[in-house]
Amino acid sequence: MKIEDLISQIRQKKSFLCVGLDTDLDKIPRHLLEEEDPIFAFNKAIIDATHPYCVAYKPNIAFYEAYGLNGWRSLERTMVYLNEKHPEIFTIADAKRGDIGNTSTRYAKAFFETMKFDSITIAPYMGKDSVEPFLEFKDRHTILLALTSNQGAFDFQTKNVSGRELYKEVLSVSKTYKGAERLMYVVGATKATYLADVRKLVPESFLLVPGVGAQGGSLQEVCKYGITKDVGLLVNSSRGIIYASAETDFAESAEKKAQQIQEEMEIELAKIN
Amino acid sequence: MKIEDLISQIRQKKSFLCVGLDTDLDKIPRHLLEEEDPIFAFNKAIIDATHPYCVAYKPNIAFYEAYGLNGWRSLERTMVYLNEKHPEIFTIADAKRGDIGNTSTRYAKAFFETMKFDSITIAPYMGKDSVEPFLEFKDRHTILLALTSNQGAFDFQTKNVSGRELYKEVLSVSKTYKGAERLMYVVGATKATYLADVRKLVPESFLLVPGVGAQGGSLQEVCKYGITKDVGLLVNSSRGIIYASAETDFAESAEKKAQQIQEEMEIELAKIN
Repeated sequence: MKIEDLISQIRQKKSFLCVGLDTDLDKIPRHLLEEEDPIFAFNKAIIDATHPYCVAYKPNIAFYEAYGLNGWRSLERTMVYLNEKHPEIFTIADAKRGDIGNTSTRYAKAFFETMKFDSITIAPYMGKDSVEPFLEFKDRHTILLALTSNQGAFDFQTKNVSGRELYKEVLSVSKTYKGAERLMYVVGATKATYLADVRKLVPESFLLVPGVGAQGGSLQEVCKYGITKDVGLLVNSSRGIIYASAETDFAESAEKKAQQIQEEMEIELAKIN
Repeated sequence: MKIEDLISQIRQKKSFLCVGLDTDLDKIPRHLLEEEDPIFAFNKAIIDATHPYCVAYKPNIAFYEAYGLNGWRSLERTMVYLNEKHPEIFTIADAKRGDIGNTSTRYAKAFFETMKFDSITIAPYMGKDSVEPFLEFKDRHTILLALTSNQGAFDFQTKNVSGRELYKEVLSVSKTYKGAERLMYVVGATKATYLADVRKLVPESFLLVPGVGAQGGSLQEVCKYGITKDVGLLVNSSRGIIYASAETDFAESAEKKAQQIQEEMEIELAKIN
């Protein structure tokens, strides 16, 4: 997907919501376990209910891998369904991959070609030649981890490297990579004030912001420090939407929750137009 | 697998060779493409030929993911075969995963429980709560990226953090994690002299050393700086062994190549006994 198409979808839906598909057999409504493919049945119902209010879906790959072949099959079905029914919606493989050159090329093929994702999350630790193979794919996007929303982010990401925090070094160095125009970044919302610093280094890049809702971040804070004239934000909510109810009304509850966030986003978007 | 069992296997086989299963349909002998599952057929032949000379196999997960469901099925078959025929051999999921707590737990289940790997490679960028979920599994091992063998390693890993290189900070901080006794580390062989510095911080830990052979490292150098009284090394070779020949004699050629490395390792092992 071209970045312009993502931006135009955001303006049309008045939303920059990404729904995280962290689908867990222990948490989905019990009646779905009778389905032939409960994970896909759950995802399909969530997508059918929430798609008017969001611009992106982000399957968390770990949740599918945990179920082996069956999980992988559910993921493939979900992607086929999304690409057929909602090709305008941006898809993110939350995979946090990254390896030496020829191996990264394999991962890129797996997610961009075999599964037809629009984007993938990547860990920066192995540097340039682990990231650039992903950047070669036209109209595909690589979302590099900069500052994550977990406690462990303070182990290394905020440590001082050559006079600035490691996550700033990642932002800055990655801008020199070939194909850097196809980079986006993960910046956790639990530290919204960091977003002002992030914007000094990547004033225009799209940021994928996890940690709003269940993890405690505030949408208003994120927008205050992170929004750009072309929005430049995808704010993710996973558990807060998909597990809004564990009963037979789960899809309806997810829809309500997504709509509620979309309405808050509409207010924020009105401020920049 | 208990670490003592790995060490005793090393002493018995006089080898600390890990064979990387980077199985690529474009590189395997053409006649195997007629098989129902060419990737598994190739892996099985390589395992049958090389198992007397190595103590570990390391499927590179990207290569399997690139083929979608079929690739995942080939990987599962390979693991079932290895665990049934050669339960004494240490298995490494070269996956370079790492995510927030509940997601890391999912990855751990996928590789340790569903696929029954003995160990997995993990990227350290997200810190403590992305690593500890893996360390909870008894007799499973987590191999943290410290210093990788690619050019991009110099982007961040060797940068100065609080007075020492980031990879040293990773070694040092990770030793404080709960379950740290189940940690091993990836240290690239292209910079063998770094191993002396690594040993100052982790004198006993097992190191997984890629980059010997195709990537240019020397086995003697690695042993000079990295070997411990309990060996403490797994040296990986992938392409140099599995693609030693692309003809019908591929398994025989792989066997010869593995045996040749085992013989070099036997010489090094004699020096510490």
